[in-house]
Amino acid sequence: MATAPLTGRHWIAGIAVPADQGSFRATCAETGTTLEPGFGEATIAQITAACVAAERAFEEYRRVTPEVRAALLEAIADEIIAVDEYLLERCQQETALGRERLLFERQRTVHQARLFAQVVREGSWAEPRLDHANSERNAPDCRSVWLPIGPVAVFGASNFPLAISVVGNDTIAALAAGCSVVVKAHPGHPGTCEILAGCLNRAIARCGLAPGLFSLLHGAGHEVGQRLVQDLRIQAVGFTGSLAGGRALFDAVSRRPQLIPVYAEMGSVNPIFFLPQALQENRWPPWVAPLVGSITAGSGQMCTQPGLVLGTTDPAWHALRRSVSDKVSAHNYTLLHPGIAASFRRSTAHRASQNWLSEPTSAVVAGESVSPCQVAGAVFQTSAVELLRNSELEEEVFGPTTLFVDCDSVDQMLAYARQMKGSLTASVFAGPDETESARQLIDVLQTKVGRIICNGFPTGVQVNHAMMHGGPYPAAIGNFTSIGTGSIKRFARPVCFQNFPERWLPESLRDQIENSTLRLIDGKFVGGSAAP
Amino acid sequence: MATAPLTGRHWIAGIAVPADQGSFRATCAETGTTLEPGFGEATIAQITAACVAAERAFEEYRRVTPEVRAALLEAIADEIIAVDEYLLERCQQETALGRERLLFERQRTVHQARLFAQVVREGSWAEPRLDHANSERNAPDCRSVWLPIGPVAVFGASNFPLAISVVGNDTIAALAAGCSVVVKAHPGHPGTCEILAGCLNRAIARCGLAPGLFSLLHGAGHEVGQRLVQDLRIQAVGFTGSLAGGRALFDAVSRRPQLIPVYAEMGSVNPIFFLPQALQENRWPPWVAPLVGSITAGSGQMCTQPGLVLGTTDPAWHALRRSVSDKVSAHNYTLLHPGIAASFRRSTAHRASQNWLSEPTSAVVAGESVSPCQVAGAVFQTSAVELLRNSELEEEVFGPTTLFVDCDSVDQMLAYARQMKGSLTASVFAGPDETESARQLIDVLQTKVGRIICNGFPTGVQVNHAMMHGGPYPAAIGNFTSIGTGSIKRFARPVCFQNFPERWLPESLRDQIENSTLRLIDGKFVGGSAAP
Repeated sequence: MATAPLTGRHWIAGIAVPADQGSFRATCAETGTTLEPGFGEATIAQITAACVAAERAFEEYRRVTPEVRAALLEAIADEIIAVDEYLLERCQQETALGRERLLFERQRTVHQARLFAQVVREGSWAEPRLDHANSERNAPDCRSVWLPIGPVAVFGASNFPLAISVVGNDTIAALAAGCSVVVKAHPGHPGTCEILAGCLNRAIARCGLAPGLFSLLHGAGHEVGQRLVQDLRIQAVGFTGSLAGGRALFDAVSRRPQLIPVYAEMGSVNPIFFLPQALQENRWPPWVAPLVGSITAGSGQMCTQPGLVLGTTDPAWHALRRSVSDKVSAHNYTLLHPGIAASFRRSTAHRASQNWLSEPTSAVVAGESVSPCQVAGAVFQTSAVELLRNSELEEEVFGPTTLFVDCDSVDQMLAYARQMKGSLTASVFAGPDETESARQLIDVLQTKVGRIICNGFPTGVQVNHAMMHGGPYPAAIGNFTSIGTGSIKRFARPVCFQNFPERWLPESLRDQIENSTLRLIDGKFVGGSAAP
Repeated sequence: MATAPLTGRHWIAGIAVPADQGSFRATCAETGTTLEPGFGEATIAQITAACVAAERAFEEYRRVTPEVRAALLEAIADEIIAVDEYLLERCQQETALGRERLLFERQRTVHQARLFAQVVREGSWAEPRLDHANSERNAPDCRSVWLPIGPVAVFGASNFPLAISVVGNDTIAALAAGCSVVVKAHPGHPGTCEILAGCLNRAIARCGLAPGLFSLLHGAGHEVGQRLVQDLRIQAVGFTGSLAGGRALFDAVSRRPQLIPVYAEMGSVNPIFFLPQALQENRWPPWVAPLVGSITAGSGQMCTQPGLVLGTTDPAWHALRRSVSDKVSAHNYTLLHPGIAASFRRSTAHRASQNWLSEPTSAVVAGESVSPCQVAGAVFQTSAVELLRNSELEEEVFGPTTLFVDCDSVDQMLAYARQMKGSLTASVFAGPDETESARQLIDVLQTKVGRIICNGFPTGVQVNHAMMHGGPYPAAIGNFTSIGTGSIKRFARPVCFQNFPERWLPESLRDQIENSTLRLIDGKFVGGSAAP
């Protein structure tokens, strides 16, 4: 496909707007060199223009049929595939995520858009509910359905430049719900963002929809985002990133005269609990490779990366730990950008000053580093007693590292589970005779995390119906998943229509409808895919 | 039924705990006299004790079967009926709400508890979702269900001492979801709160559940509530009351190290729009009585009371306005407590200094007032131009008053609808040939309110499946209804179980289940009341 060169401009309602303030460039993560073109900081006028266009486009888009929304989502998927090598090359430069990983992530991104198209067509996500009038109880006719909330501000993640960025989970869910979107581009991959903005613009144009449905604003720091969420036209915020970043947006929204929902996924330590029997009788060797894989996937830069591994001190546990440690620290890793690498070096140096399980065998010395993004993997070790008294050890270190925690007993694991902070996931490995311990642990974890994995690893989030990617604070803000079909509800709210003539009701609330959307009618479910 | 005299104590986990700090008494609203006994301010130690008990009880209660929860809700309904006259008498003294209204409200409260029992038994509220493993796509087995969030702090409303108080919408929804509850008693009706606490305590004991499932704490001011929501054991807040009160709780929660959801219903002005034809050809006279009824129901102290009535200036509109004004201001009204009455007098005096549609014919002169709770009804008049430029006129005045707004045209009504703040409801009255105007108005209102009523009045909230009692800020915080079965979701969150052996899964996520709960299995709805 022929593609225009990158412009470095903001894209506001389909128009490339010059960045006349500030300038920053992406870094080629592999080489440390600077990538053209330069990008600038969106001005207040540009932020306002994007929000005004989003509000106008919302006025049109919130009224279109589900079919139109579904077609837009499918057009977006097609456009992502069409940009192909152009997208993959720039993305690989900006993120150092390997080609195989990016192909996989692109597939997930395309699948996500198409899955939401199905959800929108089917229609039951919006929970149409009909309670007919009842003259005996003097009850009027009441019908409700979830309607789109308004223009949404989206902040993508550094670590998923396709699936959790410009065309990622938040944008797709917001468009599926019927909202317009203003995306704050991630400064780590601004070129990738611009290419994806092109996909969105072309899809919107192809579908004949208002170009203001989508805008992309650049900015190297936090100011553009802070200002964006304070624009009163914005009616919800979707964010994936750090705790500090998510919290800052929440606080900015709290200063608005009108509060709006903030949905933030902010990462966590995702503890893995190995019950003793899970490793015994030579059960541990097969876990080494997938555990190393989970710790180092995407150079360890996954929201669900296991930052804590707990086990009881016995020979099998020590063998697992040594083996994983050797493998993780035998490699160098290229992180997403120099800032993340610098932060990783600081955090691991701090931990190393206190303890170091195995010296990295391929430690990168500053002068020899080919790229400022390169770091050495590092594995640390501590005791459960230390973990229980030092909450710093529960803080996420973003990159290829983990902390092994020696426990004296399963009770110590349970003690940690009971006091742990909210986390996206927890994993429990159990042997065949450990049902009781496993159930106790799982029971506690249900109140602490969004997803529990049994005899498996937390990385590899499925985009499906049952996914819960979220969890109690500080893992997330808002009681919803940010990935999977459940995430659409974040960008909608219920509206009730009382005593309405049939013809004035939204289509899905009329007595007779054409499709088989599942509806709750007078307390009984009617329709749905199970209906005759 | 034999009932113990009121103690004035806090009830913490089934035990009456003396109030050893501060002292306040309820006022008999009709006579202005003080009612025994005295109540005190819960101390930090007492708040902590209630939260500790709630956390322990939650650990047990979150694991019980839906049948146990349903039985508890039904036992609560039975206990409310059993206290009968004892409850109604004290409640009438404390609130001056008439016997007929309180009988109706008790019925609604009992209905609410029983309806939620049905919802809990049926089970689909928790959205069980199963995505089976798929080896082709390398997808693991994922299953999710909404689980209870933890101990909930509940703040009832002054104006619904039964249906939105100790055993009201928030408590019932929280218990239905599987949560324990700590209620901050409303200082306007502390005796009613104590009687209802007895109902809850007896129901919990009858069902053999942990007494810590419920506690009641008293306090005249805001301190007890502020401290309660800052106890880190509390995992969600349910509030009904003023904007200032809800916002103060939200801000208190924002200062916690762990953010939790705050669901606040904070009232609004609930505009009524009369399109011209709705009043012409003598259509207006039948609207007078129900409009007066809606303005003055519960002495005008309803969350959904219409505080703004808009119409276009023509003879029918003026006739309606004069007729309503005469009827509303012909009476004295007894408000819930002296503070509300004082606030009402201040607000109406302020409005009167600017404008007064018709002098109240039964104005209460301070010296002659039988009770400090008595006020005169008052109706005001302004122009659309004034409303559009003075946002003070959009502020709720709690009590028997409304503001008529003269519009030059339907376009002026639309202009107000476009700029209005979030509201719980809006009502549209239209004549037979006004479909286009009505649709335009309804279309705008969909983005502004939780419920739209067509040719009807906003008061009289139905406790059903389709109700949406909420709306954009400042009407509410949180995108959920606080009344009706949808409100249960506020006190739960999704949890995903990945790669679990069947026997370790929560009952509702196993492949084979006993009841016909609706479930989303591999993207298809299965079960539910529509299933064969």
